[in-house]
Amino acid sequence: MPQLFRLRRGKLGAAPGTVEFLGPPRIDRTRLQAMAYSPDQFTERELASIDPFLDGTIAGGCRWLNVDGLHDTANLQRLGDNFGLHPLVQEDIVSPHQRPKLEDYEDYLYTVCQMITFDEQSGRCLSEQVSLVVGPDWVLTFQEVPGDVFDGVRHRLRQGKGRLRGGGSAYLAYALLDAVVDSYFVVIEQMGLRIEQIEERLLAKPDAEQLAAVHALKREMIHLRRAVWPLREVVGALERGESKLVPKSVRLFYRDLYDHIIQAAEAVETYRDILTGLQDLYLSSVSNRMNEVIKVLTIIGTLFIPLTFLVGVYGMNFKYMPELGWKWSYPLFWLICLGAVSGMLAWLKRRGWL
Amino acid sequence: MPQLFRLRRGKLGAAPGTVEFLGPPRIDRTRLQAMAYSPDQFTERELASIDPFLDGTIAGGCRWLNVDGLHDTANLQRLGDNFGLHPLVQEDIVSPHQRPKLEDYEDYLYTVCQMITFDEQSGRCLSEQVSLVVGPDWVLTFQEVPGDVFDGVRHRLRQGKGRLRGGGSAYLAYALLDAVVDSYFVVIEQMGLRIEQIEERLLAKPDAEQLAAVHALKREMIHLRRAVWPLREVVGALERGESKLVPKSVRLFYRDLYDHIIQAAEAVETYRDILTGLQDLYLSSVSNRMNEVIKVLTIIGTLFIPLTFLVGVYGMNFKYMPELGWKWSYPLFWLICLGAVSGMLAWLKRRGWL
Amino acid sequence: MPQLFRLRRGKLGAAPGTVEFLGPPRIDRTRLQAMAYSPDQFTERELASIDPFLDGTIAGGCRWLNVDGLHDTANLQRLGDNFGLHPLVQEDIVSPHQRPKLEDYEDYLYTVCQMITFDEQSGRCLSEQVSLVVGPDWVLTFQEVPGDVFDGVRHRLRQGKGRLRGGGSAYLAYALLDAVVDSYFVVIEQMGLRIEQIEERLLAKPDAEQLAAVHALKREMIHLRRAVWPLREVVGALERGESKLVPKSVRLFYRDLYDHIIQAAEAVETYRDILTGLQDLYLSSVSNRMNEVIKVLTIIGTLFIPLTFLVGVYGMNFKYMPELGWKWSYPLFWLICLGAVSGMLAWLKRRGWL
Amino acid sequence: MPQLFRLRRGKLGAAPGTVEFLGPPRIDRTRLQAMAYSPDQFTERELASIDPFLDGTIAGGCRWLNVDGLHDTANLQRLGDNFGLHPLVQEDIVSPHQRPKLEDYEDYLYTVCQMITFDEQSGRCLSEQVSLVVGPDWVLTFQEVPGDVFDGVRHRLRQGKGRLRGGGSAYLAYALLDAVVDSYFVVIEQMGLRIEQIEERLLAKPDAEQLAAVHALKREMIHLRRAVWPLREVVGALERGESKLVPKSVRLFYRDLYDHIIQAAEAVETYRDILTGLQDLYLSSVSNRMNEVIKVLTIIGTLFIPLTFLVGVYGMNFKYMPELGWKWSYPLFWLICLGAVSGMLAWLKRRGWL
Amino acid sequence: MPQLFRLRRGKLGAAPGTVEFLGPPRIDRTRLQAMAYSPDQFTERELASIDPFLDGTIAGGCRWLNVDGLHDTANLQRLGDNFGLHPLVQEDIVSPHQRPKLEDYEDYLYTVCQMITFDEQSGRCLSEQVSLVVGPDWVLTFQEVPGDVFDGVRHRLRQGKGRLRGGGSAYLAYALLDAVVDSYFVVIEQMGLRIEQIEERLLAKPDAEQLAAVHALKREMIHLRRAVWPLREVVGALERGESKLVPKSVRLFYRDLYDHIIQAAEAVETYRDILTGLQDLYLSSVSNRMNEVIKVLTIIGTLFIPLTFLVGVYGMNFKYMPELGWKWSYPLFWLICLGAVSGMLAWLKRRGWL
Repeated sequence: MPQLFRLRRGKLGAAPGTVEFLGPPRIDRTRLQAMAYSPDQFTERELASIDPFLDGTIAGGCRWLNVDGLHDTANLQRLGDNFGLHPLVQEDIVSPHQRPKLEDYEDYLYTVCQMITFDEQSGRCLSEQVSLVVGPDWVLTFQEVPGDVFDGVRHRLRQGKGRLRGGGSAYLAYALLDAVVDSYFVVIEQMGLRIEQIEERLLAKPDAEQLAAVHALKREMIHLRRAVWPLREVVGALERGESKLVPKSVRLFYRDLYDHIIQAAEAVETYRDILTGLQDLYLSSVSNRMNEVIKVLTIIGTLFIPLTFLVGVYGMNFKYMPELGWKWSYPLFWLICLGAVSGMLAWLKRRGWL
Repeated sequence: MPQLFRLRRGKLGAAPGTVEFLGPPRIDRTRLQAMAYSPDQFTERELASIDPFLDGTIAGGCRWLNVDGLHDTANLQRLGDNFGLHPLVQEDIVSPHQRPKLEDYEDYLYTVCQMITFDEQSGRCLSEQVSLVVGPDWVLTFQEVPGDVFDGVRHRLRQGKGRLRGGGSAYLAYALLDAVVDSYFVVIEQMGLRIEQIEERLLAKPDAEQLAAVHALKREMIHLRRAVWPLREVVGALERGESKLVPKSVRLFYRDLYDHIIQAAEAVETYRDILTGLQDLYLSSVSNRMNEVIKVLTIIGTLFIPLTFLVGVYGMNFKYMPELGWKWSYPLFWLICLGAVSGMLAWLKRRGWL
Repeated sequence: MPQLFRLRRGKLGAAPGTVEFLGPPRIDRTRLQAMAYSPDQFTERELASIDPFLDGTIAGGCRWLNVDGLHDTANLQRLGDNFGLHPLVQEDIVSPHQRPKLEDYEDYLYTVCQMITFDEQSGRCLSEQVSLVVGPDWVLTFQEVPGDVFDGVRHRLRQGKGRLRGGGSAYLAYALLDAVVDSYFVVIEQMGLRIEQIEERLLAKPDAEQLAAVHALKREMIHLRRAVWPLREVVGALERGESKLVPKSVRLFYRDLYDHIIQAAEAVETYRDILTGLQDLYLSSVSNRMNEVIKVLTIIGTLFIPLTFLVGVYGMNFKYMPELGWKWSYPLFWLICLGAVSGMLAWLKRRGWL
Repeated sequence: MPQLFRLRRGKLGAAPGTVEFLGPPRIDRTRLQAMAYSPDQFTERELASIDPFLDGTIAGGCRWLNVDGLHDTANLQRLGDNFGLHPLVQEDIVSPHQRPKLEDYEDYLYTVCQMITFDEQSGRCLSEQVSLVVGPDWVLTFQEVPGDVFDGVRHRLRQGKGRLRGGGSAYLAYALLDAVVDSYFVVIEQMGLRIEQIEERLLAKPDAEQLAAVHALKREMIHLRRAVWPLREVVGALERGESKLVPKSVRLFYRDLYDHIIQAAEAVETYRDILTGLQDLYLSSVSNRMNEVIKVLTIIGTLFIPLTFLVGVYGMNFKYMPELGWKWSYPLFWLICLGAVSGMLAWLKRRGWL
Repeated sequence: MPQLFRLRRGKLGAAPGTVEFLGPPRIDRTRLQAMAYSPDQFTERELASIDPFLDGTIAGGCRWLNVDGLHDTANLQRLGDNFGLHPLVQEDIVSPHQRPKLEDYEDYLYTVCQMITFDEQSGRCLSEQVSLVVGPDWVLTFQEVPGDVFDGVRHRLRQGKGRLRGGGSAYLAYALLDAVVDSYFVVIEQMGLRIEQIEERLLAKPDAEQLAAVHALKREMIHLRRAVWPLREVVGALERGESKLVPKSVRLFYRDLYDHIIQAAEAVETYRDILTGLQDLYLSSVSNRMNEVIKVLTIIGTLFIPLTFLVGVYGMNFKYMPELGWKWSYPLFWLICLGAVSGMLAWLKRRGWL
């Protein structure tokens, strides 16, 4: 089990708003990737420090800074303070395992969500947290490790096709969230394939392995659900246009995104239902097979135990057993056996056991 | 398992609004069927290209264009642009496996829903997506393959009886949605018959086949539910008259349609409950029968195992066993056997096992 | 299983609003029973045609026409048109298996609900649909077959006691709905008695019959629930006085009726819970008894199988078996048997199996 | 099973508002207990008829009349008419098994709830209905039999301590409802103790008796829940101050009462969860023990059945069986037996069955 | 089982608002700890009586009095009266096992919640009630025993870093509630570890002990849930700023706290789901193993019971059994045995039992 719920603060009793990274750093150095763009220009730079982003060296209609690595809290705090981020936001950015949420601080929006990948090897969902801070003309994104689902967005920005360059920060945020949600579908699809495989095997020959697989998938579904469901409210709030940072023209896109999240959430629910169904099916199959096994034992026992008694009788060594000396005893014995077995078989047949 | 949730976009990272058909084309050529009608006139034409529809050749009080085949995205896009359809709508039209939804773009309404047929052979629900775009005096419908549930509507249009010709685009949309919902009842009825059959067989003689059938039907119910439930909200929104494209006189019809969807949705829920009940019944029956089987084995064992011990005793070859030489040993042995069996039977009877 | 969900329209693709009776007519002739009353006068007539009701022959402060038999659609349509009933209402009146609902057409209210009787013989709930149309000073009721739960209302109208004659059409509608709801309590009570019987038997001696009875009752509960639950909304809407046809003084009565429906709905839920409890109890009992049965077999086997091996040993015909010739072998053998059995019994006792 | 849902009205078809007592009278004579009090005076009288209460003989700032016994409907009706009670209220007062509810008739409030006691002997919840009618300066309470939970309130009234004498009718009603809710906690506590006992026994040695006890308690929980849950809405409505009869200062007390009801309702839910957990635990334990039993049988069978075959072989009477004449056959046989048993035991051990 | 729901009032029928401590006092003496602070000053004193707090000896921008021990009701009542606490609040403070709630008395807020610790030894959650009364510039906290989760807050107050000293009473209350919620995460984490352990063992070797552990954890989850869920509403109400005592700047912090409670509540739900999954897994595993056990018995029986019959046949002592005298009977017998066993094994293999 991935450790679901870690201690919220580094030290119990730490003050709220303490910006402190929890857990071992997963990369050596913080990576900063800055982009500035407007419909007709585009700049992209890998930064060594956050200064060029802060001092206006990197400028344009809209700017996007992506931060990989969250353990360099001093610099993060400087960045945050520069953009006027509330201490609680700064704390949340470096706290992993947040529940997806949207917080409207008027001057900027803070959103956190989980990128999810499905590790085929272990059958586990791996999640990584992404924080988005959306200002009037800038977007900050924070992740723990490099590598994300935003390459499509970067590609489209570089090419300058489509609406992206002219869409402002709210549209960029939409594109990023859309990429996250798209990646959920990949995971859902992979899980769907796995469920199909398990179901096929389960119908052919139910065994304990399939049961464990169903159990494991159910638990991953619980995790996936925890990532998908709260995102609904996040995008729903953006779609309803509760923030002045999201212009009306962009809301249509959030509505579309909302539909996709609903679809993902429904898929997760459907898979949970199907997995529960598989579990029931497994239990019934096991019951069924046990029934078969016991029936065989009972049939064998019913046929032979009484006959074994009979042969025992004529194996007794009493001095005075008249049957033993009769000439036709032995053939008669076989006739009786045949008769008894036939009777039993008829009775079993009538009961529907054969 | 039909592949429930495909990858949403052709390529991960494709821009939103990309009109691209996913999956292999299921027909050769896009078929276009145009109708134009008013209370006193009616034109119907099979079109080779969309131009006659666009350039005013086909005119009338209200126009309906039905498109079969979604892979010719270039022409679809031209059609869409001509009618001012938002790129997201154009994308949705060619993306199968959408969740039923209604989107109000002020100038037109976009609705997507699933036509469902029940394939008796495989016991599967097959679904095909229909997109409806409803403008002030035109309706566009998009499907993947020819063949649909709209023949009744076409027939009524041609005959010119009833309200249809004079009802405008909102009434036509109602008639089309009504036909879709009507077809759900056919599916529900077929499933109901199948459930009845399974139940009868299950009460007569429960076996693994019935269990698999119940499991399969439950899964189809999950699919059916995914088609029916969201449609409630769609029609509910239309009924509440949130769009100016739906005049008040037509809303009454949407209210009626809403009732039908509720009824269909309830039927699906009821069937799910009944199927769960059948599954429980099956499990109980299997338990019951296992009990019977084990009881028989136990009775046989209880009666004969002790007697088999007894005959074994007198089959021993000890030199000094006084009973062996007695004259009445053998008849006495049989008396003891009879006594033991009678006692056992009485005991079993008292316990209620016979 | 009663066929839960029939095809909604006679022919697929029939126009909405088509007044067409579905299913075989269940009586020969439509029966029309008209009443006209005011606080101080009362007329009652069995009509051959609907004309006397339409042309003013039958007049009074408030008029009630009850129609038994729905297959004479021509006359029904004439009646409906005369009272200005919307085609969809006319269609609903002749369509059985409607979900209870209330529709407010401003000039009149349309309500449909199910009368339910419990057939003790088959253990089935039989339902018959009643449609009520309530105008300012008239009430129309439509049923499929004669015989209903309204005789108490008719009796009170004839006697002229109580509020009924002076209460207007809304009060009459209340009285009719109240009679329907009262009849639910009869059904609920009958089912309650049946559940009590099953429970008693189940605690005494669980067998497959009781299980089937529980299963059957659960299914009937599902049906009953489908009749009762939606009625809540119907009466709730009437109580909230959303229609101007229901004067304030009558709303108190609808509030009382609403309480009764809640009580009926709760009773159904409670019975469902109890039936589920009985099913669990049954399963546990079967498990328990299987345990008992297997324990007996195991005890018998544990006691005698080793001894049977022992007697077999001394039944072997080896030439050199010194024990066979000893003088005290046989008594010793019996001592060993006794010892082994005593040991086994002690062990079983210690394990709590005896 | 207590008969949950009786026929609502004496005769089917009786008019609504018919004041008629249902069921056998449980006491001989109606008992009337009147109290009149203000902060500085207090009168208490046992009345023979209701006249002294009606004609002003009993007067004071606030008056409380408690009626035990509901079969004397003539006098009840006179009382009701005198205080202007609506016929439906009068009908409800004498109809047992009402669902807790609050009805606001502007001039007075009508509340009905259930007093519950837990009969340790039978393990049953017994309920008795109490109706409260709260006017501006009077409170009427109606019960079926003498003996209630109001003695604490009476005592406080007589003593004149606390807020009670000066609190008016709404505060008296609060005190009475509070006494009813307090008594629920007694029942809940008793049930809790019983659950603890069952759990202890179940963990020590699960048997059918405990299962029946769990089942019985679950059913009583269903009843208790039916009394507690609807009371929430009753007190919630009073707390929100929807009636002008409840002054603002008293609302705080209703809020406190509301919290207590929530707590009682939650306790009932928690106990239901715990009972379900116990049932699951029982089933698992039975499964577990069956497993143990079968394992013993299998071990015995696995060890001895093959050996019994072997001894049978050398008990055969074939003329030509070379082994029979060998000198070391018999010791060898025992060696083989020992070897086989050791092998089996090793195999069983490796499988984890020993 | 911890006694979940104690009798609410000391004596049944005690007046509401009676301040009376229930249960044995758990410490000897009431401990009073007072703090007074403003951004630039800080006083802390252990008090022997409440007088210094009441008479203004302890003064400052904001004052916090923590009371350990609730049995000295006389002094508590004096304190309460001095701060104008409503009698119901005073009663609640000394009544343990309250449900978390928030009550707004305009001049002050009253909140009660549960501190929870997980006792690793017994696997039990221990809870202790904390009452918070928040006035404009003072906070009172009441606990039963010394020792709490507030040491972090005290530490931060003493050090004077961060927002705490300048934040006013609402911020102090936030800090205290935040400490309580933080402690839930510790409990949740400990439970999570325990679940992981159980799961590992259960997958390796399911036995009755794990089942009991799952059952116990499920019950503790029920308790934990009862502490966490209602707190949501409490903090939600504070966040929405329904009280004028909570300035807008502090609400952001309550929003953050709200998110944490949601996260804790979700974790509890997730663990409940996982525990239910483990229970199902256990049951399936037991079923599975029983199947294995029975299969072994059946295989042994199927192989040897018929052969035992055969050897019995040739152990019979009939005079005329021709086979006995044949020369090759014995080798032939062994061939038949081998053949029968091979046939059986083949059949078992084909059935998939080997």
